[in-house]
Amino acid sequence: MSAPEIACWFDFASNYSYLSVLRLARQRDVIVHWKPFLLGPIFKEQGWDNSPFVLQQDKGDYVWKDMPRECAKYELPWRRPSEFPRRSLLAARVALLGEHQPWMAEFCARVMLANFEHDEDIGNEDVIAAILTGIGLDAGALLAAAHADDNKARLRARSAEAKALRIFGAPTFFVDTEMYWGNDRLADALALAKLG
Amino acid sequence: MSAPEIACWFDFASNYSYLSVLRLARQRDVIVHWKPFLLGPIFKEQGWDNSPFVLQQDKGDYVWKDMPRECAKYELPWRRPSEFPRRSLLAARVALLGEHQPWMAEFCARVMLANFEHDEDIGNEDVIAAILTGIGLDAGALLAAAHADDNKARLRARSAEAKALRIFGAPTFFVDTEMYWGNDRLADALALAKLG
Repeated sequence: MSAPEIACWFDFASNYSYLSVLRLARQRDVIVHWKPFLLGPIFKEQGWDNSPFVLQQDKGDYVWKDMPRECAKYELPWRRPSEFPRRSLLAARVALLGEHQPWMAEFCARVMLANFEHDEDIGNEDVIAAILTGIGLDAGALLAAAHADDNKARLRARSAEAKALRIFGAPTFFVDTEMYWGNDRLADALALAKLG
Repeated sequence: MSAPEIACWFDFASNYSYLSVLRLARQRDVIVHWKPFLLGPIFKEQGWDNSPFVLQQDKGDYVWKDMPRECAKYELPWRRPSEFPRRSLLAARVALLGEHQPWMAEFCARVMLANFEHDEDIGNEDVIAAILTGIGLDAGALLAAAHADDNKARLRARSAEAKALRIFGAPTFFVDTEMYWGNDRLADALALAKLG
């Protein structure tokens, strides 16, 4: 029997993606295909110029009550970011470089914790550089590669792929072609993956 | 120790409300304060003239894949309604009359099953009358009371209360003042209620 596999589409700015990325980073018995992407272009297609948690005030205020409860449930740290949503373009570009590298899960988890535990600006190059250095990587080389044209093109292609898959929010999981939206469906997605 | 209590705000047209109403109708150890209301005026405040599951096509199509999975999880029957969302005004008005009656849970469950198992038009007075008769009630008297001006005013007051509570979707639960949105939070809300 082959190891269970799951694809996790997530945005580093997304608070519910934070929960799922940290939960999946702990998993030892599942192969995670990390799919960093940007929600911005998806929301723009809906005619939204920001997160629905900003545009819909009642829902947005609720989310900040829901998050500490959810973090307690999953035993994850939590501090409400002083800025939301944070710019996730840089982190996404760096993460694209790590997708098939052994440092990917660690990098993603640390960026998420920077945003949602330490209230750091993950759009700031110094913050991302410190994370890369902290896990023993060459920050200068990776940031240069992140900004290269071919990598920018890869992120645009990722956005097109998200649209083709009809992804409308994050996190979104795929087990083969079965799609699950939201951290609340991660257990279901993992259960299906482990059946396979 | 007093019995645990939970308030359940729901719309008979809402598919995720269907899951929660059926789950709560089975509960024997919790006092449920049923709060039928209409999502329409809430959505209108957002500038939406229909359910987001209709207005956002990718999310809407996903929801009809999610529902059979969720119904299997909770061992509930499911058939996708041929019309969505159905008109829930009449059922809400009748339900207002039952809020403090012993038939309330049964009535709510049967209306939900008419919509989401039997694909019946719950906006049709004959359908609601048959449900009332089926549980041994005087359908004619209840429908007359449902259409009376004082009952219409009660539903308008319910909508105002929903807005004041900053409800933005359904189902929504309250345990004292703690708010939980969505069928995915029902277990959390019940857990808090049972601690109290």
